[in-house]
Amino acid sequence: MVRTAIIGATGAVGREMLATLERRDFPVGDLRLFASERSAGTLVATRWGEVKVESLDDADPAGVEVALFSAGGDRSRQHAPRFAAAGAVVVDNSSAFRMDPTVPLVVAGVNDDAAKAHHGIIANPNCTTMVLMMGLAPLHRAAGLTEVVATSYQSVSGSGHKGIATLEAEIGHFAADFDALRTGAWEAPPPGYYPRPIGFNVIPFAGGAVAEGYTDEEMKLVNETRKILDAPAILVEPTCVRVPVMVSHGVAATAWFGRPLGVEEAMRLIAAAPGVEVWSDTVPTPLDAAGKDEVLVGRIRPTVGRPGGISLWTVGDNLRKGAALNAVQVAELIL
Amino acid sequence: MVRTAIIGATGAVGREMLATLERRDFPVGDLRLFASERSAGTLVATRWGEVKVESLDDADPAGVEVALFSAGGDRSRQHAPRFAAAGAVVVDNSSAFRMDPTVPLVVAGVNDDAAKAHHGIIANPNCTTMVLMMGLAPLHRAAGLTEVVATSYQSVSGSGHKGIATLEAEIGHFAADFDALRTGAWEAPPPGYYPRPIGFNVIPFAGGAVAEGYTDEEMKLVNETRKILDAPAILVEPTCVRVPVMVSHGVAATAWFGRPLGVEEAMRLIAAAPGVEVWSDTVPTPLDAAGKDEVLVGRIRPTVGRPGGISLWTVGDNLRKGAALNAVQVAELIL
Repeated sequence: MVRTAIIGATGAVGREMLATLERRDFPVGDLRLFASERSAGTLVATRWGEVKVESLDDADPAGVEVALFSAGGDRSRQHAPRFAAAGAVVVDNSSAFRMDPTVPLVVAGVNDDAAKAHHGIIANPNCTTMVLMMGLAPLHRAAGLTEVVATSYQSVSGSGHKGIATLEAEIGHFAADFDALRTGAWEAPPPGYYPRPIGFNVIPFAGGAVAEGYTDEEMKLVNETRKILDAPAILVEPTCVRVPVMVSHGVAATAWFGRPLGVEEAMRLIAAAPGVEVWSDTVPTPLDAAGKDEVLVGRIRPTVGRPGGISLWTVGDNLRKGAALNAVQVAELIL
Repeated sequence: MVRTAIIGATGAVGREMLATLERRDFPVGDLRLFASERSAGTLVATRWGEVKVESLDDADPAGVEVALFSAGGDRSRQHAPRFAAAGAVVVDNSSAFRMDPTVPLVVAGVNDDAAKAHHGIIANPNCTTMVLMMGLAPLHRAAGLTEVVATSYQSVSGSGHKGIATLEAEIGHFAADFDALRTGAWEAPPPGYYPRPIGFNVIPFAGGAVAEGYTDEEMKLVNETRKILDAPAILVEPTCVRVPVMVSHGVAATAWFGRPLGVEEAMRLIAAAPGVEVWSDTVPTPLDAAGKDEVLVGRIRPTVGRPGGISLWTVGDNLRKGAALNAVQVAELIL
């Protein structure tokens, strides 16, 4: 039995981490839940009895063997090393340690071996990158990915409860006057979580601004793809867009490899990979992926411009494989 | 004064064509409106008096000087040549004649000169292609577009009234149980216009299936881009996705040219083109473009993978510049 902790237990991903431990029969012994001072004292019903949420700031990590972190980058930077120093293996869902060369960045089913080299902390990749990797990694292993243009359709749950609440409120606001949406005479809703309304809209700017006109979400797609596939020369052109969907991130990708890759081979390679379903009769959508462990891949087709490449669509539940499921799978790998 | 006809006058684009003639003070003399037998007899209030809708099948085109067609490809193929033979110049919004080498395919402000070579019919490009061209054509003229990966975010009004009604109904259906959207326990709505639900979803398959796993919408992006820019060697990788937005199509594009193109030059070139606004402080969204004549371009940034290219986002009202506005602008060009 494994003494297990969830840090950020009351957030959208933290709650999914708990549900994932339960669903997968993770061998939990002595479950501890941590959150901010504000949530401390909350009682959470779990399969292993009722657990009182502890304040992270006061946390004594002694005895914890596996710590699943999803409390934001600042809290991970502050507390994950404490947990690791106390003997826990930390699986961190934030971006804090992902590009640290001493920290493995692991997509379970893609680069499991990398987990072995950990020094107490293993990073869980960005949710959008994770979904893309599930489709591209099998092709990379066979043919060597050289270049990919990746364009995302990211759901509001990727921004946590605030994103979900904003979409719910704005849908209600705009649904009162559909005509105004068509004529452009819409009234602005009360300010929400995003820089522009997301209800009946898309925002071609997911994440915060970093260098050269890119967002942090976009640069994660570049840098994490290279690290996960252990191929620093891969050329990645990212565009990250928020869409009015509750759960599941989709990515449209056009990719080229070290050799021409045919559609039949690509379909066979992806279908043979763990945790992926290839859909060819019906096109897989975010609604289809919501609540599923598997990442769905569809529209696998040859490039029509520069020959020899593959275009495809991949979509996965950002709270499951994109976050909580992968974190638990990584914990299972190191047990 | 110009004897003007709108064919398909009761559809979403046809009604916008009428509004555009009114808004732009088009010199209409003797306005005639045509639609299917079902709509014939309807009275439509216009700036030029009340007009009774005539049945297209019985139409006598004698005397019509400009005919704006938006009644679908089959009706265009059947009736546009009749109107042209009777002396009208037809501007056709369907795909029927777009790739006919004897028919100009014109984006007003991009390739106006091509309109001169018409033989009675001028084709209006696909709405998504049109929006993309407004951003890319100024760069092409300066640096020679060689390759573009284009990924769309297309609104439901691109499918006409049925698309709009489906989104409205499905938003109501799903909004009754937001939790089910997050867990995947959602109940399927009654069948709508699209192969999958569009409410709180995206469908990475816009249009109908054609060859090699592509949709007709995608192949329009390939073929019409080449024809409009008069550059048949341009490599285009298209992905067309329907999103739960009422009006305006967005396109995320990553493009390379015959020489490296810098961001400052790209911004200057696009800003100097007619009918386009470059937004750099705020990101332009579909809601911002709805009800506007201008196509909005934002997120102009250097490629981060293969050097020397430009990534950008372009969004425009698919009923205006994407359809009715361009058709009327083309009619203005040939007057």
